[in-house]
Amino acid sequence: MGNYSKADTGKLNDLDQYKFAPEELPAPMVGKLFLGDLVNLTSMDVSLNKDAPNTGMSFFHSHKNNEELHIFLRGTGEMVIDEDRFTVTEGSIVKVDPNAKRAWWNTGNEDLYYAVIQAPANGLKAAGLNDAELGEAKVPWI
Amino acid sequence: MGNYSKADTGKLNDLDQYKFAPEELPAPMVGKLFLGDLVNLTSMDVSLNKDAPNTGMSFFHSHKNNEELHIFLRGTGEMVIDEDRFTVTEGSIVKVDPNAKRAWWNTGNEDLYYAVIQAPANGLKAAGLNDAELGEAKVPWI
Repeated sequence: MGNYSKADTGKLNDLDQYKFAPEELPAPMVGKLFLGDLVNLTSMDVSLNKDAPNTGMSFFHSHKNNEELHIFLRGTGEMVIDEDRFTVTEGSIVKVDPNAKRAWWNTGNEDLYYAVIQAPANGLKAAGLNDAELGEAKVPWI
Repeated sequence: MGNYSKADTGKLNDLDQYKFAPEELPAPMVGKLFLGDLVNLTSMDVSLNKDAPNTGMSFFHSHKNNEELHIFLRGTGEMVIDEDRFTVTEGSIVKVDPNAKRAWWNTGNEDLYYAVIQAPANGLKAAGLNDAELGEAKVPWI
């Protein structure tokens, strides 16, 4: 497995087989799977999430250092960030600064699917082509 | 819009409305949307991707500093990382270290959907509850 790690988390539909329920958490979260330990992430942590209707993040939290990006994949919900409350659905992308207080909820009739990624705010120096080196070898498919 | 930024990228099915085609790129990439500029990311960059059958990343690249995480959402493909070649499908999670040479391809009959996240390797100091502060206020949905 040289310079990579991989894991198979199963179908998104089956994410509710996972539960995030550390003691310190005000309420256990069914359908939340963190990927960091699975593939030895050193730059970020990521959770994949499936929330049943009328469930979600039932308490507010903020972060000390990490920026958080929410990518909504399916379903309909709401987020509250500080004083603002808005709807999210497939294709909604929300970046939350560390100190903002946030919570969210599945307000629709179907399951809500989303990924949440956290990494240190202001830590990115370059991205995309500016951080890349292009190789000479041909890919095997063409 | 205080301490957050949001954008609406549309349905995943419609990701092929977007194209990533800077001059330096060996080939234009249809269906690749970077989120960094859309929501002012400072910690990471992220692309959402839809590849038609028999398309994909048609050249190898590595990174200088960024670790990259691939989250496969729908469809079936292959990745090559250095000397290894393997299948990916819904729920496959692949973390690639910066200097590994990587490419991937939609080898199935349906569109391949995936997210790619990059952030500086070894940049994460704490995550999840270790970076969080829990709030006292009640969420509005319960």
